[in-house]
Amino acid sequence: MLFPHSSAALTPPMGWNSYDYYDTTVTEADVRANAEVLARELKPYGWEYAVVDIQWYAKDAGARRAEFQYIPFGDHAMDEYGRFQPDPARFPSAAGGRGFGPLADYVHSLGLKFGIHIMRGIPRAAAHRRLPVHGTPYTAADLADPSSICRWNPDMYGVRAGHPGAQAYYNDLIAMYAAWGVDFIKCDDIANTNMYPHAPYSGRAEIEYLHNAILHSGRDIVLSLSPGPALIEQAWHYAQNANMWRITDDLWDKWEDVRAMFDRCELWQDHVAPGAFPDCDMLPLGRIGRGFGAERATALTRDEQRTLVSLWCLFGSPLMLGAELTQLDEFTKSLLTNREVLRLLPPSFRARQLAKDEAGAVWTCTGPAGADGQPERYLALFNFCAQPRTMAADTAAVPAWQGAAPAAAARELWTGETLPLPGARLAANVPPHGVRLYKVEG
Amino acid sequence: MLFPHSSAALTPPMGWNSYDYYDTTVTEADVRANAEVLARELKPYGWEYAVVDIQWYAKDAGARRAEFQYIPFGDHAMDEYGRFQPDPARFPSAAGGRGFGPLADYVHSLGLKFGIHIMRGIPRAAAHRRLPVHGTPYTAADLADPSSICRWNPDMYGVRAGHPGAQAYYNDLIAMYAAWGVDFIKCDDIANTNMYPHAPYSGRAEIEYLHNAILHSGRDIVLSLSPGPALIEQAWHYAQNANMWRITDDLWDKWEDVRAMFDRCELWQDHVAPGAFPDCDMLPLGRIGRGFGAERATALTRDEQRTLVSLWCLFGSPLMLGAELTQLDEFTKSLLTNREVLRLLPPSFRARQLAKDEAGAVWTCTGPAGADGQPERYLALFNFCAQPRTMAADTAAVPAWQGAAPAAAARELWTGETLPLPGARLAANVPPHGVRLYKVEG
Amino acid sequence: MLFPHSSAALTPPMGWNSYDYYDTTVTEADVRANAEVLARELKPYGWEYAVVDIQWYAKDAGARRAEFQYIPFGDHAMDEYGRFQPDPARFPSAAGGRGFGPLADYVHSLGLKFGIHIMRGIPRAAAHRRLPVHGTPYTAADLADPSSICRWNPDMYGVRAGHPGAQAYYNDLIAMYAAWGVDFIKCDDIANTNMYPHAPYSGRAEIEYLHNAILHSGRDIVLSLSPGPALIEQAWHYAQNANMWRITDDLWDKWEDVRAMFDRCELWQDHVAPGAFPDCDMLPLGRIGRGFGAERATALTRDEQRTLVSLWCLFGSPLMLGAELTQLDEFTKSLLTNREVLRLLPPSFRARQLAKDEAGAVWTCTGPAGADGQPERYLALFNFCAQPRTMAADTAAVPAWQGAAPAAAARELWTGETLPLPGARLAANVPPHGVRLYKVEG
Amino acid sequence: MLFPHSSAALTPPMGWNSYDYYDTTVTEADVRANAEVLARELKPYGWEYAVVDIQWYAKDAGARRAEFQYIPFGDHAMDEYGRFQPDPARFPSAAGGRGFGPLADYVHSLGLKFGIHIMRGIPRAAAHRRLPVHGTPYTAADLADPSSICRWNPDMYGVRAGHPGAQAYYNDLIAMYAAWGVDFIKCDDIANTNMYPHAPYSGRAEIEYLHNAILHSGRDIVLSLSPGPALIEQAWHYAQNANMWRITDDLWDKWEDVRAMFDRCELWQDHVAPGAFPDCDMLPLGRIGRGFGAERATALTRDEQRTLVSLWCLFGSPLMLGAELTQLDEFTKSLLTNREVLRLLPPSFRARQLAKDEAGAVWTCTGPAGADGQPERYLALFNFCAQPRTMAADTAAVPAWQGAAPAAAARELWTGETLPLPGARLAANVPPHGVRLYKVEG
Repeated sequence: MLFPHSSAALTPPMGWNSYDYYDTTVTEADVRANAEVLARELKPYGWEYAVVDIQWYAKDAGARRAEFQYIPFGDHAMDEYGRFQPDPARFPSAAGGRGFGPLADYVHSLGLKFGIHIMRGIPRAAAHRRLPVHGTPYTAADLADPSSICRWNPDMYGVRAGHPGAQAYYNDLIAMYAAWGVDFIKCDDIANTNMYPHAPYSGRAEIEYLHNAILHSGRDIVLSLSPGPALIEQAWHYAQNANMWRITDDLWDKWEDVRAMFDRCELWQDHVAPGAFPDCDMLPLGRIGRGFGAERATALTRDEQRTLVSLWCLFGSPLMLGAELTQLDEFTKSLLTNREVLRLLPPSFRARQLAKDEAGAVWTCTGPAGADGQPERYLALFNFCAQPRTMAADTAAVPAWQGAAPAAAARELWTGETLPLPGARLAANVPPHGVRLYKVEG
Repeated sequence: MLFPHSSAALTPPMGWNSYDYYDTTVTEADVRANAEVLARELKPYGWEYAVVDIQWYAKDAGARRAEFQYIPFGDHAMDEYGRFQPDPARFPSAAGGRGFGPLADYVHSLGLKFGIHIMRGIPRAAAHRRLPVHGTPYTAADLADPSSICRWNPDMYGVRAGHPGAQAYYNDLIAMYAAWGVDFIKCDDIANTNMYPHAPYSGRAEIEYLHNAILHSGRDIVLSLSPGPALIEQAWHYAQNANMWRITDDLWDKWEDVRAMFDRCELWQDHVAPGAFPDCDMLPLGRIGRGFGAERATALTRDEQRTLVSLWCLFGSPLMLGAELTQLDEFTKSLLTNREVLRLLPPSFRARQLAKDEAGAVWTCTGPAGADGQPERYLALFNFCAQPRTMAADTAAVPAWQGAAPAAAARELWTGETLPLPGARLAANVPPHGVRLYKVEG
Repeated sequence: MLFPHSSAALTPPMGWNSYDYYDTTVTEADVRANAEVLARELKPYGWEYAVVDIQWYAKDAGARRAEFQYIPFGDHAMDEYGRFQPDPARFPSAAGGRGFGPLADYVHSLGLKFGIHIMRGIPRAAAHRRLPVHGTPYTAADLADPSSICRWNPDMYGVRAGHPGAQAYYNDLIAMYAAWGVDFIKCDDIANTNMYPHAPYSGRAEIEYLHNAILHSGRDIVLSLSPGPALIEQAWHYAQNANMWRITDDLWDKWEDVRAMFDRCELWQDHVAPGAFPDCDMLPLGRIGRGFGAERATALTRDEQRTLVSLWCLFGSPLMLGAELTQLDEFTKSLLTNREVLRLLPPSFRARQLAKDEAGAVWTCTGPAGADGQPERYLALFNFCAQPRTMAADTAAVPAWQGAAPAAAARELWTGETLPLPGARLAANVPPHGVRLYKVEG
Repeated sequence: MLFPHSSAALTPPMGWNSYDYYDTTVTEADVRANAEVLARELKPYGWEYAVVDIQWYAKDAGARRAEFQYIPFGDHAMDEYGRFQPDPARFPSAAGGRGFGPLADYVHSLGLKFGIHIMRGIPRAAAHRRLPVHGTPYTAADLADPSSICRWNPDMYGVRAGHPGAQAYYNDLIAMYAAWGVDFIKCDDIANTNMYPHAPYSGRAEIEYLHNAILHSGRDIVLSLSPGPALIEQAWHYAQNANMWRITDDLWDKWEDVRAMFDRCELWQDHVAPGAFPDCDMLPLGRIGRGFGAERATALTRDEQRTLVSLWCLFGSPLMLGAELTQLDEFTKSLLTNREVLRLLPPSFRARQLAKDEAGAVWTCTGPAGADGQPERYLALFNFCAQPRTMAADTAAVPAWQGAAPAAAARELWTGETLPLPGARLAANVPPHGVRLYKVEG
């Protein structure tokens, strides 16, 4: 039976992640530069994690980008126990076996928390070289399951479920990360092991090993699982073992991706709880795409961006920003620092889809009681159409608001406009792919 | 977009249903006799619905039971508008077109509520005879979709989704039931239309028609959807339109069926809310099976029965009793009248699976704060094994109980035994397929 | 165990079918007019069947075509035993219970054979009215399986597999058709009962009933099964019980449909045998579409039409012409009367795909030995591209031609052009979506 | 487009294979000893191939048999180009880089042909070490696809389809085998790459590479593809590129396995042709199982063994014997040397299932015309039941025999008993799981 849940991340984690801009190529200098902006500009609003995403150990990261995102049989920095280390050419402070310790220290010195990305399993190179597993009598060849691979990344073999050394391997690995000062681990190829359409949850045992290893480490480390879509049938197991799990495949700056998230949020809305968050993926806002060979400003319109941020906050998704932060523009910053919108993020503000059809969706959110003894009430109108249109909702018909004072007015949180609600009915013109997000008042 | 939710059934409905004992053959006299016992013996404990299950309109019900549960092209009581009426031979008070009105009146006179079973759609016989649909310019042949049938019952065609008369048909039908005094409708072949493995939710539009028709009727009628397993992907849609929906195929008095419900409850535990209840199916306790040609006392052991009632109450399932009530024995009655166990039923007592493996499960339940300001705390140990075994749980590790006073003792709700909890650890010997259900105290 | 195979149709049946032009609306006058042209113009080339396709019993056929191809709960001509009869308004000679006898006589008088379309099963209307089944102690309600329906046509219920009256029902029905003089039965909703994705071959028992009934009738009746795609896993069962079976869903005058047939022909090429023919569907050539509200000349280009006829003949598919014959134009007629191409149709001319890729296909065909002791040899180059291109094949590499005299020249069967084959290599420029079909000579 | 077919194996290959007895552990001495018996005892009856099955390159083969059939990250003999070599400890004559040349020479000296087993792809160890690919500018890391693996064997990565070095790699490999004198290659993990339920034919390109490489080698090498079940949808592609392909998963000495082959043979009976044989798998007769830790005499009864040999010969499957030959007993030998039964093996003796149900099957076989101008006729009655029972067939009803002289008598090919056929009807008592295989005479 499983151990109890970590106490980390009682509200959705907020931070910055290197992937959307840098892909596999991020460097220590990049992380420091972004973290500095994060600390200075965004931390006052709750953004606190700086996360180094995939293949920080690859010496040849990005070298053959036209052919491969992840070079097969690539050259990876690794210690004598087969544990990946930051590539010292990209992360100079890692030289001498110090790993991410110095960089984590720097990030901590900014008042931030430090996160890394890992892949499920044990390096293939370690298994083929039969390297010893630190602190165990086993070699990587003993633990690696040669038939458990990732469909899209060639670096790892899965660890044999049930092997006597499996938990010890993960304990040792997480202990090393804890010693470095890691606060957040995004483990990939594990929430949905989509190599195996017939067995999409074959990472189950490794999820438990990771969870147990974090408890064993004694450090409060947030555990984030990727990729999505997570399996709704496993909702309990994710929540029991992890703090967040991706409910979607990679999201990019396309309206279709944002639109599809409404279906995901409908599906997962009952599964948002303190310490356990369905994850709508990173925010592809601001400057993104350089490592992918397509540097650009986000292709989402301003209305689409407001829709994205509104939905993520209402739903209660973790917020991980993809933008390159030294180039953060004012509009993007305004999206990320709207205190009234960010206020809706914690699970104590409970959101619920009220209606959805081909043309749009209506969500409500109910917060704790305010000074007047009334619960805070929010209502969002989302327009899926390419044309503006008038949308309406009857606030008296919201089940959770039965018994509250009749709604008399509403204030839009992005524009500040105030609307009277005759007969408790809210109606507004909503721009294409846009949102009107109201605080409803008695 | 959809109308708001009915206010009926804010706690899980409790009652009696004719199916498990009578199958298709129940009569007015049977319903009256059972309802009388229900009112006298069980109503004080919250049991209030008396529900007439399937084919009350069939004149030949049960006549060819060895071949057919539902006789194809059978002889059904029907008015000139193609609306099924209670077979007057079985339900004499229905004579003269009074339908279930007199029986509902009698049930109401006992202080109870009255429910009926219906099948999705419009009678095939009405369509083939082109009978007019009351209050509309259409005939049944216009509304019936000849390619929408039920896999296991031959009585109906589905109603064409989107037909201009579709909502009117359902409005008329529900208005007739409301006029009869019906308080509860169990609609079948609709939660999972398992005729169509490729389109298991093809009853979606008809669910909405029913919901709208109930709102339109102005009567508080509980809407119950069958059969299961309901589709977890449609959890929001069920909750938006119905009060309860079956999360399992038919459950009978076999341990395998009870055991399988733990998997269902794991899956649906986050979807229990006021007015919207995942339904674990009827309780096959006491005397059952006569209509099926297999009259018997339930084949579940006493421990299995306690397990069943404990799980249903913890989880918050509707409780619909299958037993023939004039033969209600003392043991069965004791299961149904344990106020401390029934207390856990409402969604304000929030249950959560803490652990599950091949050998057993642990559930917790957290209720509102008591007089001491502490939330009520419950913990259940379920043993899936055929041997007794000692099970244990660490009450300090329950996430929802962080901050509460340390657990010091526990009282078992079926036996009354009290247990000290050294170090907040609860350990008990649990009988085969049995339960130990504790109230934890500070 | 199954009875042996009928001796009918040792070569692929050739004829005319009413569907592509008339849909459900064909009349006796239409059939006579078409049959007369068939007899006069095409019979000398082997075309001999005149087939009346679907719903000849419907009194309201086509009346609500914008809504329904097959009107639900429609008005059908039927005798007192529930056997469909030709609608006497459309087929006047059927009056007085003579069925298709007089029309069949007329068709026979032209030297042709007569065919009809039927649906698997027993009329729903007969079952709901409980009509007696002729020559048996049963009613239609006894034999009809109310859960066995057709996805796209509302007229029938499947017959209960294994019911003691099932074979007797089919024997009686086929005896009636045999008495009318029917030579060809196209049974629909049976080769692939696509209502049930999980059980696509649920018409299996009814296929056997039909086969046995034909043997029992003592008349040589060709049995044709629809719709497709037939299931390759059931190839033996089709061949054991029927003379032809559709390997494709409906084919229309679109290049995509013709292109897709190359994949079907690859799949079924080893299953063409005397009396047992995979069926590529009717030829949508000439004037078609009136009953569908879209009368037109075929939308296929002349090259696409030659491709179609060449592939059907090479492969050995039955040839059923969809054109309205009183409007038969010279080009279409030329396609249907090329004796050198039609010569390839019998299974004694064995065809085989030699190669296929995205751009085209090469087929060979090997016939019986000619006067010189050499087998006849044919090679077809099919161009799938929208541009003309040069295609080539090495005739020395055809496995079936090992040992034959080296190929020296080739004559194209549509154009008559002769080509030298230097080094036994055939190369030709093939038009877009076109064919070059060569007879290879030593 | 594809090259023409090899001329090897116009009749089903017959021989001996090391797998059923030795598993991965066979040695040169074993091969020589078995080949000597094969040449002396069985070659006069057509048995001619001696095949070394899986992992002849493994230095640790069988060393951890309780845990692994194929040791992950095992120690394999390999040349500097990453080409597996026979383990010289097991195959001493391979020392000095001579590979299987000396052993092939010895086998050839016995008048036999020599075969080996290979796995699809390129060794994982070669890819991780980036070894050069002989005769190309590439390394194994360039050619290996790290996401293409085998579910059950850890030795290889698939070769990248479409890589400019892919065909060259296979050409080089097959050239090495040709230089050794290999006559038969059984390639595994290729007919059905069952790692990928969503893409079971992902070895398609490698099948073509192998076929082309064999043509390129200039040596007549039989190509055999495993494992099964082969995909009926790909029947043309197998036949175009290979000489035999497994239509079943591994077959062992269990009645269920033999019984299931009747379904496979029904499915594939139209796909048996010269040079292209659906393969029913090896014959688990005589002494088998030592390498698997379960040495035994075959567990099939004598009747089951006759059934197996009769079906394989009728159907036209390759015959690869699994027995250890130095322990060949008289009964087993009698099964393998019945000239009248073996006579049915070539495709010129065309077999066809006449009937099959739950209790048994009837097959016919029609051979070339004999001296009397009549085709040879055979009929087999197979009893699937565990009790003896009388089976019968009407020889006049066999489609292929229309026109032949009436059958008057029948001689059983295993017992020699002769049976009169009154009214051309053959009836016999068939033992449990047994066969009666008759030659029918006029």
